[in-house]
Amino acid sequence: MPQAFFEKHQTTLYAALDAIGSRCYWSAYAEMPSPKIYGETAPATGKTDYEAHLGKHFDLTQPGIQAWAGGEQSPYGVALDVQYPVCAIQALIDAGQAAMASWQALGVNGRTGVCMEMLARLNQRSFELAHSVMMTTGQGWMMAFQAGAAHAQDRGLEAVAYAYREQSFVPQDAMWEKPQGKNPPLRMQKHFEIVGRGVAVVVGCGTFPTWNTYPGLFAALATGNAVIVKPHEQAILPAAITVKILREVLSQVGVSPNLVSLCVPANQEITQALVTHADVKSVDFTGSNSFGNWLIDRCRQAQVYAELAGVNTIVIDSTDSYQAMLRNLAFSLCLYSGQMCTTSQLLVVPAAGIGTDEGAKSYEQVCADLAAAIDLALAKPEVACAVLGAIQSPATIARIDHANSGELGTVVRASQTLHNAEFPAAVVRSPVLLAVDASAESAYMEERFGPITFVVKAADTNAAIALAERIVHTHGALTLAVYSTQSAVVDAMTQASWNAKVALSINLTSGVFVNQSAAFSDYHGTGGNPAANASYCDSAFVANRFRVIQRRYHV
Amino acid sequence: MPQAFFEKHQTTLYAALDAIGSRCYWSAYAEMPSPKIYGETAPATGKTDYEAHLGKHFDLTQPGIQAWAGGEQSPYGVALDVQYPVCAIQALIDAGQAAMASWQALGVNGRTGVCMEMLARLNQRSFELAHSVMMTTGQGWMMAFQAGAAHAQDRGLEAVAYAYREQSFVPQDAMWEKPQGKNPPLRMQKHFEIVGRGVAVVVGCGTFPTWNTYPGLFAALATGNAVIVKPHEQAILPAAITVKILREVLSQVGVSPNLVSLCVPANQEITQALVTHADVKSVDFTGSNSFGNWLIDRCRQAQVYAELAGVNTIVIDSTDSYQAMLRNLAFSLCLYSGQMCTTSQLLVVPAAGIGTDEGAKSYEQVCADLAAAIDLALAKPEVACAVLGAIQSPATIARIDHANSGELGTVVRASQTLHNAEFPAAVVRSPVLLAVDASAESAYMEERFGPITFVVKAADTNAAIALAERIVHTHGALTLAVYSTQSAVVDAMTQASWNAKVALSINLTSGVFVNQSAAFSDYHGTGGNPAANASYCDSAFVANRFRVIQRRYHV
Repeated sequence: MPQAFFEKHQTTLYAALDAIGSRCYWSAYAEMPSPKIYGETAPATGKTDYEAHLGKHFDLTQPGIQAWAGGEQSPYGVALDVQYPVCAIQALIDAGQAAMASWQALGVNGRTGVCMEMLARLNQRSFELAHSVMMTTGQGWMMAFQAGAAHAQDRGLEAVAYAYREQSFVPQDAMWEKPQGKNPPLRMQKHFEIVGRGVAVVVGCGTFPTWNTYPGLFAALATGNAVIVKPHEQAILPAAITVKILREVLSQVGVSPNLVSLCVPANQEITQALVTHADVKSVDFTGSNSFGNWLIDRCRQAQVYAELAGVNTIVIDSTDSYQAMLRNLAFSLCLYSGQMCTTSQLLVVPAAGIGTDEGAKSYEQVCADLAAAIDLALAKPEVACAVLGAIQSPATIARIDHANSGELGTVVRASQTLHNAEFPAAVVRSPVLLAVDASAESAYMEERFGPITFVVKAADTNAAIALAERIVHTHGALTLAVYSTQSAVVDAMTQASWNAKVALSINLTSGVFVNQSAAFSDYHGTGGNPAANASYCDSAFVANRFRVIQRRYHV
Repeated sequence: MPQAFFEKHQTTLYAALDAIGSRCYWSAYAEMPSPKIYGETAPATGKTDYEAHLGKHFDLTQPGIQAWAGGEQSPYGVALDVQYPVCAIQALIDAGQAAMASWQALGVNGRTGVCMEMLARLNQRSFELAHSVMMTTGQGWMMAFQAGAAHAQDRGLEAVAYAYREQSFVPQDAMWEKPQGKNPPLRMQKHFEIVGRGVAVVVGCGTFPTWNTYPGLFAALATGNAVIVKPHEQAILPAAITVKILREVLSQVGVSPNLVSLCVPANQEITQALVTHADVKSVDFTGSNSFGNWLIDRCRQAQVYAELAGVNTIVIDSTDSYQAMLRNLAFSLCLYSGQMCTTSQLLVVPAAGIGTDEGAKSYEQVCADLAAAIDLALAKPEVACAVLGAIQSPATIARIDHANSGELGTVVRASQTLHNAEFPAAVVRSPVLLAVDASAESAYMEERFGPITFVVKAADTNAAIALAERIVHTHGALTLAVYSTQSAVVDAMTQASWNAKVALSINLTSGVFVNQSAAFSDYHGTGGNPAANASYCDSAFVANRFRVIQRRYHV
């Protein structure tokens, strides 16, 4: 059956391989939540399936169940009340390791086929998954469907494609025949076995519980490892549904479902014991610098792939599309209330202002116009709520309040509380915009996660570029952008992006936003600055997750 | 000119790519020091060129020269008396970083072409390099030429081929066009730039100063990094010649020669400052567990690729070629006096003895026969000296003396001092063979580098296999072997090799030895057990040495 799955999905696999080879546009999973694509009953069934989890024990038949726990607080203020099994981590590790031999025996094609069947099943459950993502993270519905379902699946498939490509380079066998002059050649038969490193742990985050989990999950699985998914305590349900689907597929192909398990730890100490366990050989993490750096420091037995925080920056030098630039920036800052690790925190503007197609604009004018553009983007309440979603964490609310207080800089636009008609208890906040001088580094030069943006006044464009490079080099960033009509400025920013090792978006004025990265084409993170030590997705993300064990004998 | 070098060496590159794809036999550089291959004058010229270095200052025109140092002690007892520049490490790092921009600008093909030209020039200098390797390491001439020149060059080329393959997967450009239903598609031009991580440091070892240095050196170079070579204090000359050749090629193609430099540190503290420097992004190391683990612990700013020590083991269950097995084992143990990181330290034999084509052999008989086989292999003094070479380190002499004392086990065969007629001051020792019970773990279960071998008496074959797996899992190994006529035993050893992640050689009775690994076909190290966290060579060895920095804009 694994081979049958491989054949069933072969066309998709080859298309994915083409896509990672060309990095042109491609997607395997439709991003529109359309009944025409997903089936007329899919929206209703997905919602029903999601609702069926609420108020229940989520059954996973995992080993070592000690208790049940849950308590996710929805940013939309709805009651979830799902209870998940709390399992002894040693039981999960042991069961995962025991499952690895049969997983190894499937070989590259078998594992790839099974992973692709898993992704296809996840795709069929996209509505259910999207509701679970929306309700746990506070994302708006469209983002939850796109980033939480289709795009997450694309990122998972991307990792499978990379893993397949790297593994398929390793020949299974070789006949080695070394000439010996006049004597008969030395001949050896060699066999090369791909063996997973061990148990992988994937630590999810509260804002993107599938999009940031699937790359590590599928990279580790496809390369022969067992995987324990440790979701964020506020976003367990999307991970639990995912794990359950994967376990069903494994059972069907005769591999122990314990190859993939969910870990809902009783406390932080259990998480620490899990990730530092001698048998855990890789840890994928998305989240805070503090825990991420703790993982890098302490998980010495494992490869750690960490997506941390950064200070994403945009340098605004000039533009020939002022209104389009403002619209693009405003939408980007509003999207999911800036709760994306890719959202820009700093807009660096020369003190003398910028040149535009509407004439020169002073620094102050840019600030005011951007505030107005945000107001305009949020003018319709239902659109505002759909774009902003809800605030995932009380810590973010505290940061917004702090920014609103004016302590961090001059408040150009204060964050407001909005009412969501569909979810009256939803916690909705619009972006806050602060004006600061470049000298106020203590205010802006650390990540302030959420809808908090600083318009930084720099001496001039060169100073702005130098500041951007320094920020990325020292504090990290997942995104960098520039607006300029001057090729010399774009070239200087390009060099800065190479020096600081961050992806650069240039003059975005249309339907692509700096905080969006497209699977198969855009690298998410470079692995070259402090915001992330790995990238979605490249060879380095998969190549060290397996080892090749050879044997040789004379023939 | 880089492009011309690429074209000049393209056929060789494609052959290398084929070889890493098939892992069948292939070699780019002739391993026989034959005038017919290398030219009639090559042997004499190489010797003269080598001798021309002796008693001189080795000029490298590097920046930041503070002093001159040297003092290599030849295991052959000859005076070398070469002085090398001691340069300020900050000067080397700064100059290396400054050289990286033009190196990056050459692109993948340009860098690959230049690296291959470097290797071709090294190959032309094989006799000179082999003499320098022989005299600094104590290797016999043939090994010095093969492992020190041709095979090291093959391993360097292998790394270049892997680096080329991974980098050439990254498209330079992509036109990304996303359909938007009835609206015009979103179109973006994207560019993907390969950028080196930073300065790489390659720390060499005293026994294989080129073979263990070239993989990391060329992997780092080919992927866009500057490289500082920090040789072992007793084997500087081969590294210095190598660096000089590479710098000449760089000058010729208009890249600053400071992209590659030699670091002869004044003391250990300087080495530590170098490898922990914030701008050093990778460290390749071959050597002791103590310094290797220090590097892994302390070089948190860098990727560390470490080849450490292990306890290589052979399980002897049965054989249908007893004499051939003994000959193979004896030669393997004698070769370079066991001073290879791949030499077997333990031969595990069941207490009840083994079955052979000459009938059953008791444990004691196996010990005695192996001792006799070693005697036979060393019967002719000139052959003995050619095979044994000389002892590289006084610490190895101390370990031999300790083993000879009988403290570690029953001395089956004592190490003897031999006289080398050509080099009367050479330090030559034959192997010592000890018999121990499996319970004497404190004697044999740590690396005792040098010609020291334990014949370990295990309860039975199953116990022997279990012991071997445990040793590799806990102490690491680069090689594992088994002799058995029973497929069940071979299968069990295969499973043990997968569990412990070590390469397995089966029934070697011919002209391949367990301590030899062939470039392009045999992985050296798996990266999966404590003896090494990386392998020569695989995708993981190169994929994380560069980052891809993209930029995108609408068209």
